[in-house]
Amino acid sequence: MANGTLLYAQSGGVTAVINATASAVITTARARRVKVLAARNGILGALREDLIDTSKEPLASIRALAHTPGGAFGSCRVKLKSLEADRARYERLLEVFRAHDVRWFLYNGGNDSADTALKVSRLAAEYGYPLTCIGVPKTIDNDLAVTDCCPGFGSAAKYTAVSVRECALDVAAMADTSTKVFVYEAMGRHAGWLAAAAGLAGQGPNDAPHIILFPERPFDEAMFFAEVKKTVERVGYCVVVASEGIHTADGTFVADAGAGKDAFGHTQLGGVASHLAARVKDTLGYKVHWTLPDYLQRSARHIASKTDLDQALAVGKAAVDYALKGMNATMPVIQRTADAPYRWKIVPANLEDIANHEKTMPAGFLRKDGFGITAAARRYLEPLIRGESPPPYGRDGLPKYVVLKNVAVKKKLAKFEG
Amino acid sequence: MANGTLLYAQSGGVTAVINATASAVITTARARRVKVLAARNGILGALREDLIDTSKEPLASIRALAHTPGGAFGSCRVKLKSLEADRARYERLLEVFRAHDVRWFLYNGGNDSADTALKVSRLAAEYGYPLTCIGVPKTIDNDLAVTDCCPGFGSAAKYTAVSVRECALDVAAMADTSTKVFVYEAMGRHAGWLAAAAGLAGQGPNDAPHIILFPERPFDEAMFFAEVKKTVERVGYCVVVASEGIHTADGTFVADAGAGKDAFGHTQLGGVASHLAARVKDTLGYKVHWTLPDYLQRSARHIASKTDLDQALAVGKAAVDYALKGMNATMPVIQRTADAPYRWKIVPANLEDIANHEKTMPAGFLRKDGFGITAAARRYLEPLIRGESPPPYGRDGLPKYVVLKNVAVKKKLAKFEG
Repeated sequence: MANGTLLYAQSGGVTAVINATASAVITTARARRVKVLAARNGILGALREDLIDTSKEPLASIRALAHTPGGAFGSCRVKLKSLEADRARYERLLEVFRAHDVRWFLYNGGNDSADTALKVSRLAAEYGYPLTCIGVPKTIDNDLAVTDCCPGFGSAAKYTAVSVRECALDVAAMADTSTKVFVYEAMGRHAGWLAAAAGLAGQGPNDAPHIILFPERPFDEAMFFAEVKKTVERVGYCVVVASEGIHTADGTFVADAGAGKDAFGHTQLGGVASHLAARVKDTLGYKVHWTLPDYLQRSARHIASKTDLDQALAVGKAAVDYALKGMNATMPVIQRTADAPYRWKIVPANLEDIANHEKTMPAGFLRKDGFGITAAARRYLEPLIRGESPPPYGRDGLPKYVVLKNVAVKKKLAKFEG
Repeated sequence: MANGTLLYAQSGGVTAVINATASAVITTARARRVKVLAARNGILGALREDLIDTSKEPLASIRALAHTPGGAFGSCRVKLKSLEADRARYERLLEVFRAHDVRWFLYNGGNDSADTALKVSRLAAEYGYPLTCIGVPKTIDNDLAVTDCCPGFGSAAKYTAVSVRECALDVAAMADTSTKVFVYEAMGRHAGWLAAAAGLAGQGPNDAPHIILFPERPFDEAMFFAEVKKTVERVGYCVVVASEGIHTADGTFVADAGAGKDAFGHTQLGGVASHLAARVKDTLGYKVHWTLPDYLQRSARHIASKTDLDQALAVGKAAVDYALKGMNATMPVIQRTADAPYRWKIVPANLEDIANHEKTMPAGFLRKDGFGITAAARRYLEPLIRGESPPPYGRDGLPKYVVLKNVAVKKKLAKFEG
């Protein structure tokens, strides 16, 4: 048994495969006889000294995490500020780490988490506390810098492409007398990565999706209507995929167009798909339907990408390796070494190069007209949704997802107010 | 080769497995050396004499229909009226049948289609035209009379239960600092069958879905809020599944609450989930998210139920058998012979007993408080989502769905205006 404890925490929006990373972290550490605690609800658990003893979970449960979506230890949406502005909380983290002999801190999240891990490592150095901080990549948004792609994205991308292909077949069958325009709303506030993945559902100009709307291009309603009309007249129907984050040239989010209060003072929630569908109905007179998959797209472990799963497992294993080697302030990232056949490997990157950077979609991935993806985008995206790795199913027809016991570690410190 | 032609048509909303029925119809008929034509876009194709020669499709394509969602020949939302009111159209159908020597007419749809098939058979008898009309069951709504369940429902039910289990894991992980109430909108205007299927996602009182809202019970907002609050306080979050058809005691659809025109005169589309989510946010102050899967739930062949697929194939095969035996005005239906182990067989039913009837959910399937399903409902529903039968996937990570050539048969008649 190595001296010291490894603390693992999940951060931000969960994915279909973040638990696979957790599974790899814990099984790798166990094999190296390292004790693993997990913070309940991400960094909050670390601040609250609300820690989970993963050694209380049988190996079968830890292995089952590899096919279980969600965040098994809980996650949170909390961003620590700068070392100066949030010093008390950073110091509290060190205090908790010291109390539980945490020598390795693995923070599984996106840009913000990389930043937090980096700052904790700096503070530890300042105080002379021996700590190795490792960022572990995760996000369906695919917007992490340095890494070629992010674990979590491939599965959400596969869900998107498969769902769009399927509903397009439905619309095609009914278009003669029913729905002619169908709008699919994809997650992606700042970058259109998931909307782009929908483009994998079809190939030719008559294949769905016929129109993709990206936050990277200003939304022009008149041009959109013209394209919808042209498509319906040519194909008989039109499948539109819209990023939640599309906005007009002046920066107004299209999703906010329907949001606000109604005549009774009741809240109206926004939404790109419902708004676009309503506008198409009003202006072009077509029968419309729309879908908002929301969390379904990031929790659909049943249609996870094998590539994505493999990478989620690989970053978890590498994170423990890096930690035990003392490779402080790094993140295991995915490096693509070939497109065809697709090859990748895990390499270390400096958290400094990742924290607070955001990877946007290359301009060369968007078609000139802004309504679709290019061959270059297809080359990049296609390997990421490749392969299936369905969960085991029970006799009841449902995936056998595991729920952990999550036994709390006895607290040693006073309550923290902050 | 038997004398005469078998005409197959798809009707109403398509499903994940209606093409499996088509596949079984065509392969069974081919094996019996019977020529099969398909009507393009359902009964409209029959009226327009827009017929497809299925013999032009290779056997591999016909077999691939068994794993392809949508409606391969096109479907339509057209209901013929009574024989008296729509006599010209019924007579046109007979005229087209005569021109193409159609001796067997298989109409794959719900209540309305059973009614149309029945009327066509009566008119044929009146005119002394030798025709055998068979209804073939299909609907995700599960509201067909006589049959124990409807092909198409089991797969949509499985999609629903799996999706709710998955997104509930997501919400559970994030609830501490993010979404506390999640609302899932299920199809079902008149009957809450799909919402009920969501109940399979969990077992105990703390398992999602915590609240199911059925069109069978009047919606009472105050009671709903109280239940949401109680659940969030007990469990930490609350997953709600709402049928699109829920309404208040006076019959007002909740989905219409947000529908209408906004201040700019723009259409606002309705929706149960977005409305409930907004009301919960306003009244209880919880952070909310919601999903509207819409067509995704009925086209998700990738998560089809094996039971459902088997039944879709079985009714297709039986329909051809019944047709060739001259069992006019019948429908092959599913008879459940045992719950555990689940056993079923296909038996003939009279179209007269099915046409224009609607099967509602037994009162004993709803919990007394109206917010969940009973053990009896579970016993009925669970076998229907059992088993997996994923489609084959390509190297590109996408299901290999087939698109038919749909070669038109040369027209023999003048154009029909009607």
